[in-house]
Amino acid sequence: MKKIFRLQSMILTVLMACTMVIPGMCQVSVQKENSSAAIGRQLNLMPLPTQVSRENGLFRLDTTFAIAVMGKAGHRIFPYASRILRRLSNRTGLFFDQDYVNPDYGPDSAKMVIHIDHPVKLHLGMDESYQLQVTPQKISLTANTDVGALRGLETFLQLLKSDSTGYYIPAVNIHDAPRFKWRGLMMDCSRHFMTVAVLKRNIDGMAAMKLNVFHWHLSDDQGFRAQSKTFPKLTGDGSDGKYYSQAQIKDIIHYADQRGIRVVPEFDMPGHTSSWFVGYPKLASAKRTYRIQRYFGAFYPVMNPTQKYTYDFISKFLKEMTTLFPDAYFHIGGDEVRGKQWNNNKKIQAFMKAHHLKNNEELQSYFNRHLLKMLTRDHKKMIGWGEILQPGMPHNIVIQSWRGTSAMVKAAKKGYKSILSNGYYIDLVQPTDVLYLNNPLPPGLPLTPEQKKNILGGEATMWAEFVKPGTVDSRIWPRMAAIAEVFWSVHAPDVNIPGGYMTSVPDSIMTPKVRFEVHDMYRRLDIVSNQLEELGLRFKSNYPVMLRRLAGDNDIKALKCFVNTVEPVKIYRRPNERTYTQYSPLTRVVDAARPDSKVVRNFRYLVYNYLHEKNNSADTYKQIEQWLRTWKNNNSDLQETIKKSPILDEISPLSKKLSGISEIGLQALVYKTTSEKAGRDWEMNSMKTLKAANQPLAQVRLMVVKPIEELVMSVGPHLVNQSNK
Amino acid sequence: MKKIFRLQSMILTVLMACTMVIPGMCQVSVQKENSSAAIGRQLNLMPLPTQVSRENGLFRLDTTFAIAVMGKAGHRIFPYASRILRRLSNRTGLFFDQDYVNPDYGPDSAKMVIHIDHPVKLHLGMDESYQLQVTPQKISLTANTDVGALRGLETFLQLLKSDSTGYYIPAVNIHDAPRFKWRGLMMDCSRHFMTVAVLKRNIDGMAAMKLNVFHWHLSDDQGFRAQSKTFPKLTGDGSDGKYYSQAQIKDIIHYADQRGIRVVPEFDMPGHTSSWFVGYPKLASAKRTYRIQRYFGAFYPVMNPTQKYTYDFISKFLKEMTTLFPDAYFHIGGDEVRGKQWNNNKKIQAFMKAHHLKNNEELQSYFNRHLLKMLTRDHKKMIGWGEILQPGMPHNIVIQSWRGTSAMVKAAKKGYKSILSNGYYIDLVQPTDVLYLNNPLPPGLPLTPEQKKNILGGEATMWAEFVKPGTVDSRIWPRMAAIAEVFWSVHAPDVNIPGGYMTSVPDSIMTPKVRFEVHDMYRRLDIVSNQLEELGLRFKSNYPVMLRRLAGDNDIKALKCFVNTVEPVKIYRRPNERTYTQYSPLTRVVDAARPDSKVVRNFRYLVYNYLHEKNNSADTYKQIEQWLRTWKNNNSDLQETIKKSPILDEISPLSKKLSGISEIGLQALVYKTTSEKAGRDWEMNSMKTLKAANQPLAQVRLMVVKPIEELVMSVGPHLVNQSNK
Repeated sequence: MKKIFRLQSMILTVLMACTMVIPGMCQVSVQKENSSAAIGRQLNLMPLPTQVSRENGLFRLDTTFAIAVMGKAGHRIFPYASRILRRLSNRTGLFFDQDYVNPDYGPDSAKMVIHIDHPVKLHLGMDESYQLQVTPQKISLTANTDVGALRGLETFLQLLKSDSTGYYIPAVNIHDAPRFKWRGLMMDCSRHFMTVAVLKRNIDGMAAMKLNVFHWHLSDDQGFRAQSKTFPKLTGDGSDGKYYSQAQIKDIIHYADQRGIRVVPEFDMPGHTSSWFVGYPKLASAKRTYRIQRYFGAFYPVMNPTQKYTYDFISKFLKEMTTLFPDAYFHIGGDEVRGKQWNNNKKIQAFMKAHHLKNNEELQSYFNRHLLKMLTRDHKKMIGWGEILQPGMPHNIVIQSWRGTSAMVKAAKKGYKSILSNGYYIDLVQPTDVLYLNNPLPPGLPLTPEQKKNILGGEATMWAEFVKPGTVDSRIWPRMAAIAEVFWSVHAPDVNIPGGYMTSVPDSIMTPKVRFEVHDMYRRLDIVSNQLEELGLRFKSNYPVMLRRLAGDNDIKALKCFVNTVEPVKIYRRPNERTYTQYSPLTRVVDAARPDSKVVRNFRYLVYNYLHEKNNSADTYKQIEQWLRTWKNNNSDLQETIKKSPILDEISPLSKKLSGISEIGLQALVYKTTSEKAGRDWEMNSMKTLKAANQPLAQVRLMVVKPIEELVMSVGPHLVNQSNK
Repeated sequence: MKKIFRLQSMILTVLMACTMVIPGMCQVSVQKENSSAAIGRQLNLMPLPTQVSRENGLFRLDTTFAIAVMGKAGHRIFPYASRILRRLSNRTGLFFDQDYVNPDYGPDSAKMVIHIDHPVKLHLGMDESYQLQVTPQKISLTANTDVGALRGLETFLQLLKSDSTGYYIPAVNIHDAPRFKWRGLMMDCSRHFMTVAVLKRNIDGMAAMKLNVFHWHLSDDQGFRAQSKTFPKLTGDGSDGKYYSQAQIKDIIHYADQRGIRVVPEFDMPGHTSSWFVGYPKLASAKRTYRIQRYFGAFYPVMNPTQKYTYDFISKFLKEMTTLFPDAYFHIGGDEVRGKQWNNNKKIQAFMKAHHLKNNEELQSYFNRHLLKMLTRDHKKMIGWGEILQPGMPHNIVIQSWRGTSAMVKAAKKGYKSILSNGYYIDLVQPTDVLYLNNPLPPGLPLTPEQKKNILGGEATMWAEFVKPGTVDSRIWPRMAAIAEVFWSVHAPDVNIPGGYMTSVPDSIMTPKVRFEVHDMYRRLDIVSNQLEELGLRFKSNYPVMLRRLAGDNDIKALKCFVNTVEPVKIYRRPNERTYTQYSPLTRVVDAARPDSKVVRNFRYLVYNYLHEKNNSADTYKQIEQWLRTWKNNNSDLQETIKKSPILDEISPLSKKLSGISEIGLQALVYKTTSEKAGRDWEMNSMKTLKAANQPLAQVRLMVVKPIEELVMSVGPHLVNQSNK
């Protein structure tokens, strides 16, 4: 009965995708698209599973649907499966008979049977594979471990479909396992404190996307966030009262564990430690009083690694924290140590001479070796940022590579295990496609198969200079889901995007195949986004909240229309352009604007199609014209809102510019479709206006400049190679 | 320099309100509207302060704005004022120089000076008065207690206004104090568990609305939610693992205390106690095993009040809980005791005979007297639902009146203190105006001034049969803000609405004055709603989230248009129409629909104006026609969505009905404005169609039937007194 839709489903998928927005680029995809990936796309799965085949028929859902668990089940599966049942019920509105999934249900009374060989204690490299078989009669989920079963349950839920008869699960056969062992998200809870509720809903999102490491950045210059009973002044003096009690920490660890997610704590040492010194100034390398750092950056305060006091302190501290956090890995930070305090301290200089430590790197390495000894004593493995890879460090540490892939390659060659974070700095608000094409193991990496095994996976980093609980979700999601696909799926695009600081995908990488893969990722991401917000994530729902606050008591329509066309300035432009503190408001237009505007993306597709495709262009033309007309006319309404809400003053000029360039775009359409022709003056003036509109203002950037410019260039014979990059 | 804008500002306010929607009904208001109330309205304050006067000029906000605190300040004011500063910064986008409000700031360095005479330990009747004076140079907030200052800070934030120059606070002089001492919100956390995050954001909303009692309903048949260390099986067996640890309870109490809100815990006894018996079946009056109750209602399990075991248990339990909860009041429930278990237990019957307890009420009274003794030992005062007012109870208990005002009056006459909850059952999804016109001390209450003092205030009750964390905010807010005005302000409408089960305000009460007051309440409520959602409340933002889930992967436009015209069935229709359990989905249209649709309300005003006012009717006509046309055409789009999302099947017939009655409304407009005249057949058929459309379906009701019917009746000479009530 088995029928693997090789070509058939491929074509289907591709057609589905193509008819939506990008016709014409299907040829390549049809030839190269892998069958399982094609079916995975067709089923809107994310991350794409390793192997999928479609079978005959479908499994209809009704209120008698129930789940039974067999085998050595452990403690995670029952509450997890109960939550799946609830989510299924919430989505379908079905009043299921089954209340909770519990051992009372046997395989005969349940239409879905989960079989687990054994539960696991979470660890790096745990078995997360699962098999999911759906027939019209029965659903069977089999996994070696309970964590594998959790991953399979998320796939199961994504399979829910409906037709006019009701809800169903298509018959499928799925074999799935992760590509990488370490699939993480780091959240910085120091620069701005994140409540327990924020962490929990993000952990739920992580589990839905099959991520398995929550890296918890708990200390930095701007605040110490984990309660220590041994050293109560760490939070007592260094947190403004914003910290996690040990009970809350245990609660978060348990919550994550129940979802198959390891919690790796980070206490950044010896730099980024101002907040430690507020209560314990003797730890520092310069004798003075310290206050919590209110600004952002890399500062001078650094631990004194030459005195017994420091090691006694850290020894006791680690003893306490390694007991509190059960994971085998412990992150000691180690990044951005600035030498000033060491250089200016005569005792430290003397110590370095006496111990033949030639420079500050060697002094940090000396410090790290002490830490490593303590962690080993406490049965932990050390992980740290790239800087900890220094001569003399043993091979059982893990390097978190943040400054570039080359550092990771170097580490792997030397036999060090590492994870990639460079290119996954989601605080830099890059668009999703740039992140999606970043790959911990891209083609052409100069590593032997053995060395490749040293690349454990990757981690996205949510640094918190510019996020608070109200905005952090929108800076993580939905982009994180695309990254999760890269970490999990062997079907993620196989390209090598250069470096971590791109703000758009270079044309050289955008082959038709990659263009198709990116487009389909965005298509699935829209669907997955709605599912993610069911978990309480607020990346969509907080947008109108922010717009309402910005508009005061006025209608948000014009404001929304405008903000949909901008994105926050990217990479490090924001802190470079204006001085922020920990208590600056993060409620302006730049904070409401999303990293990857769907309106802009769709407009870009429309223009691309209009200029590069032959079919469908009448409708495409109409849509482009409509958008341009809307934007042109929006300015007068928005200026009315701005008058009544001074927080919007800063965008007033940009709103005018949007109107101006939209008018230019409309004129280009006229030249495109009538006998009227553009002249050199219009061309040059238009490009000048577009160039001016391309300049960021109020820390946001008009993202429709580029496609409008393309329209202008397509009608301007004098404009070859004049694009405003 | 002082200038009280008596008539001037009254007229202004009234004109402001009138030009919006209800012209023509201004005459009465201008004559009767109290000056302070008028200025309070003009300033969009809610709750309205006791005394307000406008002064000359305004205070301009800039980044140098800072707050200083003088006097004996206590522990609440600094973090509270810091939060106010942050909220002000968030709303204005101003990067204030001041980081945190702390004792370092003196009166010379700050433009706003708070003076507090002394901090208080929270208690019933604490001084919450404040005076707020704003001049162009300085803002001064003076209060006897720190809690008074918190109340004043919320008023201060509501005063924020803007013009084209920037943000400012108008010069005012405010003297304010609450009308009632007990201004509460009860949240049922048993029937559906509410997370700590849900409670905290609602407590924030309460503080913004100057409420002062959070009544925490912690146990019921469906779950025991407070950790007891003495009796760990209470939550161990009786909570599905969903409970508050003692650390979380302390955290909530602290959180509320910091906001000047007392926490009154309720452990409902002797009925509503199934969840206690799961772990401790010996407490019950019938010997059997017990499970957590999954259904809703009033059940038979009841404590055995005739055995030593029960009192030993409760004694130890109260000892623990009265230590955990610091408030002087302790709520013992006492409602809805069903006699079956007592009647069937021979030992209990024998005990009653031996102790001369004539009936079950006397047995409960016997039980309550034991509880009272223990609570007195533990230095607590008893509060309970109306049922605890039985012969033989001493006068130092507080009665929470839920079954009617008359019970409260009876209690007050007997010298018992009481609070009113009847008419504030917000789970019954009544519209805001009905709640707003309910008054703990309405005119004409047959009580002496001395007896009136026994009425301490009121409490809204959020029973949780039909709410979960995702929907509870929308069932509390914004209606709670209107209730808060009744509890706080002497300017709340002074009427006597009969009983607690109205679904609309009776015409007899809707005098022009009341109509104006209600209208202005709604106008201010819209403004306050935006401010409330800044605190993280999700009553607005979760609406599109729910619509997106309902629509599957389809556009929500048509769905939203429809859901805007319906409201959930009210009072007890919902549980009477369909059997719900604790694990039934609360994600259907009935859950997305709001208790008081603004679209409907505005449409109702439009029709009222069109039919009863002479001016402005051309525009009014156009708007009515536009709405009717939109609704008429919406059905075909919505049916497309319904086809793809089976959870919406149930509303399909109602969508058709909306379309049908809108067509009738359009036809009525034709008859109204042309020479064409309605005939008897059309009239009768229209009324029949409207009557059918008025029937609830899928547990929602079309709320535009009534105004369309009014249109029809206005053109139907045969329809006098035919309205579908």
